[in-house]
Amino acid sequence: MASSHRSEMIVRQDSPANLEFPFETLSDRLTPPGQFYVRSHFPVPELSAADWRLDISGLTRQPLSLTLADLHAMVSHTVTVTLECAGNNRSFLTPKVDGVAWDLGAVSTAEWTGVPLSAVLERAGLQAGVQEVVLCGADRGCLYEPVKTPGIIAYERSVPLQKARSDVLLAYAMNGQPLTAQHGFPLRAIVPGWYGMASVKWLRGIHLTDTPFQGFFQTLDYSYWEQSGPLSPQMTPLSAMQVKAQIARPAAGETVAAGQPYSVTGAAWTGEAEITGVEVSTDGGLTWAEAELTDPPEAHVWRRWQYLWQAPNTPGQVTLLARATDSAGCTQPSEHAPGRGKYMITFPLPVTVLLE
Amino acid sequence: MASSHRSEMIVRQDSPANLEFPFETLSDRLTPPGQFYVRSHFPVPELSAADWRLDISGLTRQPLSLTLADLHAMVSHTVTVTLECAGNNRSFLTPKVDGVAWDLGAVSTAEWTGVPLSAVLERAGLQAGVQEVVLCGADRGCLYEPVKTPGIIAYERSVPLQKARSDVLLAYAMNGQPLTAQHGFPLRAIVPGWYGMASVKWLRGIHLTDTPFQGFFQTLDYSYWEQSGPLSPQMTPLSAMQVKAQIARPAAGETVAAGQPYSVTGAAWTGEAEITGVEVSTDGGLTWAEAELTDPPEAHVWRRWQYLWQAPNTPGQVTLLARATDSAGCTQPSEHAPGRGKYMITFPLPVTVLLE
Repeated sequence: MASSHRSEMIVRQDSPANLEFPFETLSDRLTPPGQFYVRSHFPVPELSAADWRLDISGLTRQPLSLTLADLHAMVSHTVTVTLECAGNNRSFLTPKVDGVAWDLGAVSTAEWTGVPLSAVLERAGLQAGVQEVVLCGADRGCLYEPVKTPGIIAYERSVPLQKARSDVLLAYAMNGQPLTAQHGFPLRAIVPGWYGMASVKWLRGIHLTDTPFQGFFQTLDYSYWEQSGPLSPQMTPLSAMQVKAQIARPAAGETVAAGQPYSVTGAAWTGEAEITGVEVSTDGGLTWAEAELTDPPEAHVWRRWQYLWQAPNTPGQVTLLARATDSAGCTQPSEHAPGRGKYMITFPLPVTVLLE
Repeated sequence: MASSHRSEMIVRQDSPANLEFPFETLSDRLTPPGQFYVRSHFPVPELSAADWRLDISGLTRQPLSLTLADLHAMVSHTVTVTLECAGNNRSFLTPKVDGVAWDLGAVSTAEWTGVPLSAVLERAGLQAGVQEVVLCGADRGCLYEPVKTPGIIAYERSVPLQKARSDVLLAYAMNGQPLTAQHGFPLRAIVPGWYGMASVKWLRGIHLTDTPFQGFFQTLDYSYWEQSGPLSPQMTPLSAMQVKAQIARPAAGETVAAGQPYSVTGAAWTGEAEITGVEVSTDGGLTWAEAELTDPPEAHVWRRWQYLWQAPNTPGQVTLLARATDSAGCTQPSEHAPGRGKYMITFPLPVTVLLE
């Protein structure tokens, strides 16, 4: 599939593929097939459906090895989920930081079909004391920049047992079609409400542990510094997505007709709550007006929104901003907290347009 | 004290002070006052005995704030403990790595007097679920190289509750004298058998937690990659010292009389076990001979050793090596495992001398 659509994506890195959804083309609730953003750390592993197995190991009552047919034979679930890369909007940070320079499009929405992780865990049985479920990808390799991996490592991330049991899906289909190679064929995790790094692709194993997992992608990568209590900040794995609104149109640099109405559109999403409101500023943040949410609320899915802007008569530059609020009462910070490093960039992003 | 003795130490860094014991001068079991190695991350905090408090916080039954007089009024214990910096011998690594370039002397032995941490914990009382005890230093600052701290942070390290209760000492005296400023006045932790990073100086707090502490000096610094089970290596805080023997005399580059007897001397130490044997090679590792242990075994204290070497008649270069074994059956690896990074350098160190 990639070949026919890849030209419509923004290529941030060719190999491994890191491809961005052109967010200004946002129209449907589901991102068009072939335009869902792609985040890869290593080359796509070559897996054959016939030989592939999912091994459930660690603190199980019995080790389990499932074929794709075994998974297809289990009761399937279909959910719509928005995934956002934790580094989305990184190109807006100053000074520049390491990592893929994502603009607006490391976020997309799809319909995922598969088996709840809870059903697989129930089949394996859990020993007492399980704290975390490590999702093990078949993709592996060495990284040298910005930090060096300890030799060849695999892509592995954990989720707490409670999250694993509540709504994590082991998905074999995306928008009604088998997963493509770039999106994790034959099986990937979908961790609703969490940044994309938890939704491990090319799953080969599920490992149950009684201690917090401390792999490379859980510590040196995909973590931030969280300050709480009287201690200095602590290294904390990224987890739930933070509330955010993005403007799709107008795009930055677009020319807008002075004195005419313009429908400002975009989408807003959050982690474990619901988007309850989006505000737009057309004067660089001095005043804010309520936008209209055009999608109904649905857990773990973005809500599109629109705001009818009466563009002023005076030609010149105008900066638009959007910010969202969720049902947990969270809104966007005005600045990027240094402890977040190159992740969780959620301050309102300026979109500067030209009135003519 | 520092001024009169500092000239006898090897200065690796002037500010903050990182000073090395000249290991080739090893003679007594206790390192001479003023020659105990100094490892600092930040400037020495200026603390006055009168104003200073030790705050016990977190999951206590009652928060506690102790004065130095309170601690002096408790039953005191005196123990002899060898401390080694986890980066000792770093100058032997190729290629070169970041960090202070310690040669042989980031290891020393002293007699420490203070109050068992267990007695202080008992006085505060523990809530259910305590897993770790965070030792909080008053030293703080920013680091930029090789990795950046999240703003200004304090030096903090944790030990598991079990270790905290077993033998950790809160020491106010070293070799019978109050702690000097460089060694942690007015109070420091002594964590016997563990690398020195755990023996936090300038203690200002003890914080009890029910989750593993993930501060900067427990993750980005003073950790290594440990491989266990089917997962990729995991970031693991350094803890117990690994078994090691070092040659004090002859020193590298020393001239030794050909055909004469020479008493090769040194010390050997390990973490939670006892040194049971030291072997010496005088042919670059082809053959090994047993050395004589000249100190009795004592938990957490190095044992000095000697080996009477009949130096060959032929002039030229000779490389000596030493290696130790402990009561847990551990010995030294022949090579540095990459996952250890810039720490736990325990392969036998070559000492090349000139026979004349």
